[in-house]
Amino acid sequence: MESKLSPVMVREASMRIHPLARRTPVFSSTSVDEVAGLKVHFKCENMQRGGSFKIRGASNLILSLPDEDLKRGVVAYSSGNHAQAVAIAAHHVGAPATIVVPADAPRVKMEPAHNQGARIVTYDRKRESREAIAEQILKETGGTLIPPFDHPMIMAGQGTTALELLEVIPHLTALIAPVGGGGLLAGCATIAKAINPDIRIFGAEPELANDTYLSFKAGRRTKIQVGETIADGLRSSEPGELTFPILQRYVEQIVLVSDDEMRDAVKFLLMRMKILVEPSGAAAAAAVLRRKLPRDIGSIGVILSGGNLDFEQLAAY
Amino acid sequence: MESKLSPVMVREASMRIHPLARRTPVFSSTSVDEVAGLKVHFKCENMQRGGSFKIRGASNLILSLPDEDLKRGVVAYSSGNHAQAVAIAAHHVGAPATIVVPADAPRVKMEPAHNQGARIVTYDRKRESREAIAEQILKETGGTLIPPFDHPMIMAGQGTTALELLEVIPHLTALIAPVGGGGLLAGCATIAKAINPDIRIFGAEPELANDTYLSFKAGRRTKIQVGETIADGLRSSEPGELTFPILQRYVEQIVLVSDDEMRDAVKFLLMRMKILVEPSGAAAAAAVLRRKLPRDIGSIGVILSGGNLDFEQLAAY
Repeated sequence: MESKLSPVMVREASMRIHPLARRTPVFSSTSVDEVAGLKVHFKCENMQRGGSFKIRGASNLILSLPDEDLKRGVVAYSSGNHAQAVAIAAHHVGAPATIVVPADAPRVKMEPAHNQGARIVTYDRKRESREAIAEQILKETGGTLIPPFDHPMIMAGQGTTALELLEVIPHLTALIAPVGGGGLLAGCATIAKAINPDIRIFGAEPELANDTYLSFKAGRRTKIQVGETIADGLRSSEPGELTFPILQRYVEQIVLVSDDEMRDAVKFLLMRMKILVEPSGAAAAAAVLRRKLPRDIGSIGVILSGGNLDFEQLAAY
Repeated sequence: MESKLSPVMVREASMRIHPLARRTPVFSSTSVDEVAGLKVHFKCENMQRGGSFKIRGASNLILSLPDEDLKRGVVAYSSGNHAQAVAIAAHHVGAPATIVVPADAPRVKMEPAHNQGARIVTYDRKRESREAIAEQILKETGGTLIPPFDHPMIMAGQGTTALELLEVIPHLTALIAPVGGGGLLAGCATIAKAINPDIRIFGAEPELANDTYLSFKAGRRTKIQVGETIADGLRSSEPGELTFPILQRYVEQIVLVSDDEMRDAVKFLLMRMKILVEPSGAAAAAAVLRRKLPRDIGSIGVILSGGNLDFEQLAAY
């Protein structure tokens, strides 16, 4: 296993994850272009196996583990989509999986992990530390932690999203992805810049979980108290130790979006494109639809990173 | 213009409608196959331009009209999706369009026709005859009626849906489409049987608008009083004069689905496949997901015929 993310690792990941991750479709629509004021290509990770891009990183790391490690099992802590992805990948290779999940995570994100045979351990997001709980389980089982973003193999896996997008639409002026811990954006930026050094990279982050935005301003990783944003997949309190320097190197700007803007983007994508994207997954789309990017961008790849949303939650929008 | 539908007309339509109709994606999912008990391929006409397959037939007929006819305009009566399709195709060729729409048609289906510059004339579905109103307009304008289904060029256009599906997935055991007036199913059956005489053809119809089902039983076109089904696109009271003999020739069985079954299918497609399909568009999917077809079918193409649904209507499911 490599210790540092490289474009070659993203290409290797692309081959490794093939049995597990889908090559998701890329959609565009002139009515979207009119709203956004530029040519938009959506990479639909909401239609990915497990309902988000997370299967890419999780399967890249898990499929690279030696058999003796797999036997002792894998452990993940996650607000949901990563949990589901780890459960799917572990099930695929026959490894036991334990998932540490906040008790208030959306039901739609926990049930599938359970259905894949994973053991679910819940914790109180406000009083307990998921890292401490995971650490305890690792000590007991001798298993392997599958971190949600801060690992070269995870970032490399997530980067295959941009690799596939650029294989279909090679001449993009820019690329934008939602930012939680930064694994998706770091992986995508690394491969996109290797393919086309001129491509401009943007991240979209919730106003109520603006740790990467503030870290960019400060020039160093900054920890925040995360607000109750509807973007439950982007509620990170601090960029990753590994992801942040990569984002600093490649990302032109972190754009903030409000909960209302993400909610509107979810409804817009549903009614106009007929696809279901969760609020976190629609963060980058919200930034583009609200024309928050520089005016001189001709075409942009927008990663719709996930589509797991309770029906009741959607119906209340 | 030909007077009788033939497979060649469907192939010609495929070339003619190219500037206007999209080649929609085909999706499958192992989790769907497990529910249905057979291999399912969804042809996503919910992602078609105008949000339904209707643009195929409307543009096939309108693009074949001589300029002098186009100048006098086109007229359509429709519960919504056909109206929108006629408006789009007319706008594309610069022809004035008048749409006769029931006053209670879903808002999401009327607004886009209006936005395309069409003149909208509403009528009371329970007391007035849309045919009579359209007839009056045609007399005044000298325009051309674009019928919703009972016309060889309309059926030929709709048949391109199955042609595209079979180009992507050639070896299907069976094909199923929703049935309103029967234009989509007649066109699809004609081309599918020409490509593969062994393919088995099914139609899905709402219990509350079972005119084709009853007509099959009776062996002749039978008129019904249409109930208040949520499948607003399938509320036809009688199969077409031209569509019915084609359906009789090719269709093995008309399968009935309840409003609840369609509602469940809409939610299933939304939560599992992350796509928005309207109740009418989900009729065939409902039949397959509820395992209403013969057990010996190995693989089936399921046409998701439209995706136009008010958000408020969806939220109430």
